[in-house]
Amino acid sequence: MGKAPVEEHPVKAFGWAASDPSGVLSPFKFSRRATGDEDVRFKILYCGICHTDLHLAKNEWGMTKYPILPGHEITGVVTEVGSKVQKYKVGDRVGVGCLVGACHKCDSCENNLENYCPQQIQTYNSLNTDGTMTYGGYSDHMVANERYIVRIPNNLPLDAAAPLLCAGITTYSPLRYFGLDKPGMKVGVVGLGGLGHVAVKLAKAMGTIVTVISTSPRKKQEALEVLGADSFLVSTNPEEMQAAMGTLDGIIDTVSAAHALVPLLFLLKTNGKIVTVGAPVKPLELPTFPLIIGRRIVAGSCIGGLKETQEMIDFAGKHNITPQIEVVPVDYVNTAMERLTKGDVKYRFVLDIANTLKAT
Amino acid sequence: MGKAPVEEHPVKAFGWAASDPSGVLSPFKFSRRATGDEDVRFKILYCGICHTDLHLAKNEWGMTKYPILPGHEITGVVTEVGSKVQKYKVGDRVGVGCLVGACHKCDSCENNLENYCPQQIQTYNSLNTDGTMTYGGYSDHMVANERYIVRIPNNLPLDAAAPLLCAGITTYSPLRYFGLDKPGMKVGVVGLGGLGHVAVKLAKAMGTIVTVISTSPRKKQEALEVLGADSFLVSTNPEEMQAAMGTLDGIIDTVSAAHALVPLLFLLKTNGKIVTVGAPVKPLELPTFPLIIGRRIVAGSCIGGLKETQEMIDFAGKHNITPQIEVVPVDYVNTAMERLTKGDVKYRFVLDIANTLKAT
Repeated sequence: MGKAPVEEHPVKAFGWAASDPSGVLSPFKFSRRATGDEDVRFKILYCGICHTDLHLAKNEWGMTKYPILPGHEITGVVTEVGSKVQKYKVGDRVGVGCLVGACHKCDSCENNLENYCPQQIQTYNSLNTDGTMTYGGYSDHMVANERYIVRIPNNLPLDAAAPLLCAGITTYSPLRYFGLDKPGMKVGVVGLGGLGHVAVKLAKAMGTIVTVISTSPRKKQEALEVLGADSFLVSTNPEEMQAAMGTLDGIIDTVSAAHALVPLLFLLKTNGKIVTVGAPVKPLELPTFPLIIGRRIVAGSCIGGLKETQEMIDFAGKHNITPQIEVVPVDYVNTAMERLTKGDVKYRFVLDIANTLKAT
Repeated sequence: MGKAPVEEHPVKAFGWAASDPSGVLSPFKFSRRATGDEDVRFKILYCGICHTDLHLAKNEWGMTKYPILPGHEITGVVTEVGSKVQKYKVGDRVGVGCLVGACHKCDSCENNLENYCPQQIQTYNSLNTDGTMTYGGYSDHMVANERYIVRIPNNLPLDAAAPLLCAGITTYSPLRYFGLDKPGMKVGVVGLGGLGHVAVKLAKAMGTIVTVISTSPRKKQEALEVLGADSFLVSTNPEEMQAAMGTLDGIIDTVSAAHALVPLLFLLKTNGKIVTVGAPVKPLELPTFPLIIGRRIVAGSCIGGLKETQEMIDFAGKHNITPQIEVVPVDYVNTAMERLTKGDVKYRFVLDIANTLKAT
């Protein structure tokens, strides 16, 4: 057995963690490493609550190691930098997303795709190279190699910018990689939650024509008037779906519940692409005819590399894109998780760490 | 009611057709149109037996109109050309594949992708623009607009060239479109039947390193020694499959029976692609995690356009690629279909039309 989390490293840290599959979070003392030569240390101001935090806190994917301290949409201000750090200085506005390490030797790393490195180190629930666990952003401060630090553009507020570090890059990367970023293209976004609402904003800023596809007719007005989507399809309305057949170049599917692919596949043009980023636990049913007769693609995409994450947030800064958020105090986190389970949030909870995290 | 097939058009024709879902074929008199200005008429010498012929003769896809006269891997020699025909003359060695018409106005047609035109006219079991049925190559002669005529390279025998017109283009097109054609790439071929064995030859000629993946260990020697594959995986052998994880850039999946995608997905590298061309009737199970964590793609592809079909057959000519065939007389067709159901053919039956089709 190794040391207790609070004894592992020289720098004391504090946050909220879950200790069992109830997923209930409570105050938790731990520690973080000293600032290494290439490390950036920063005071955490805000941290978004991603659906992944909920899945992992409750061990829904069977890969959780307790105690787990979630949070990978983290923003704050630099407090210390290592001697070899080149890009950041004390006082800089920065963030950390889903990753804090990778092998830096494999094909993926060499192509700035740390997110596909088999040895990637995730921001929480992952093993550091020294064998200690990583702990996330529901905590007072963060330390990471500068490769994993993202600079937040000055015009983006640190609370609303936080969710870009997961929800933003998760939808931006497939829009770019799968070529769904050309002005005038017709792009669908399935599901209007934390990921989906950012996908709408990013796709619009790229100049595409955006259709939101949702089971909830009640989301229509907001999708069109607040988020700026061009059209809205109720996926349970056969007439609407039929009329839209063959009209989309691609779809970003953010739904994490089991759902039917067939109606979505038929919305695509020839050569159309549906990219799933929502990670449903159970396999989806994939009929091959709609793929074959239209040379269509079903693909997956997982966050993005660090170079692209910086590119994404710079793009968001340039176009003044921020997620819609509800800022809540840290001791509201368990209530927020319950509401998230029910989809009761527009569209992302962000923990106000600096003002509400109190060391007990 | 329209006229009987033998009365519809001015030119008498003769072949073998099925009249009900037993799929049993028997001699059949019908007629074909006169040679139009842009038409090429040719005497059929050979016609391959594709698995699609079997599916449709037995109405397994629920879309068959009887009587059905199959055959879309057709080769022969030109006997007459229309006044505006530019590319062909009497005596030319030609073929017709799966298509004989399309709208020529849509995006797909304008991009030489008649195979994805919603109004495509298939070589059999389809409606001509005049409302009459199309009849395929298990018959004495063919007539088609010159856009749908393919020139067979002089070095390719007309019997062995025939299956290239479906099995060849069906595997060539996705290798090209999905970028699995770069020398040194690692390409998997799943299923070693009519399509699969041609895929191996084409992929090898493109310079890729080819792995055959099959449920049948007994196919190994032939795959390596006769077809030229570089390696062979038995898909039911967990150790072999495990050892090959993450090694392939792409897979052409030719299997038309239900089968598991997961083990195939894990053979792919990051950004790897699996392209299904085998059209299983039941949906496949698609787990999203292997897609997401490796940005992998599952796609479909359907034959190819006419420009690409000519390119494919010229490529086959240049590299001296021909399918392995078993030439059989026309009155063997029902036995051939039975053997095809059991996978008992290496690897494609070709009907010897010119020498064995006897008008009764």
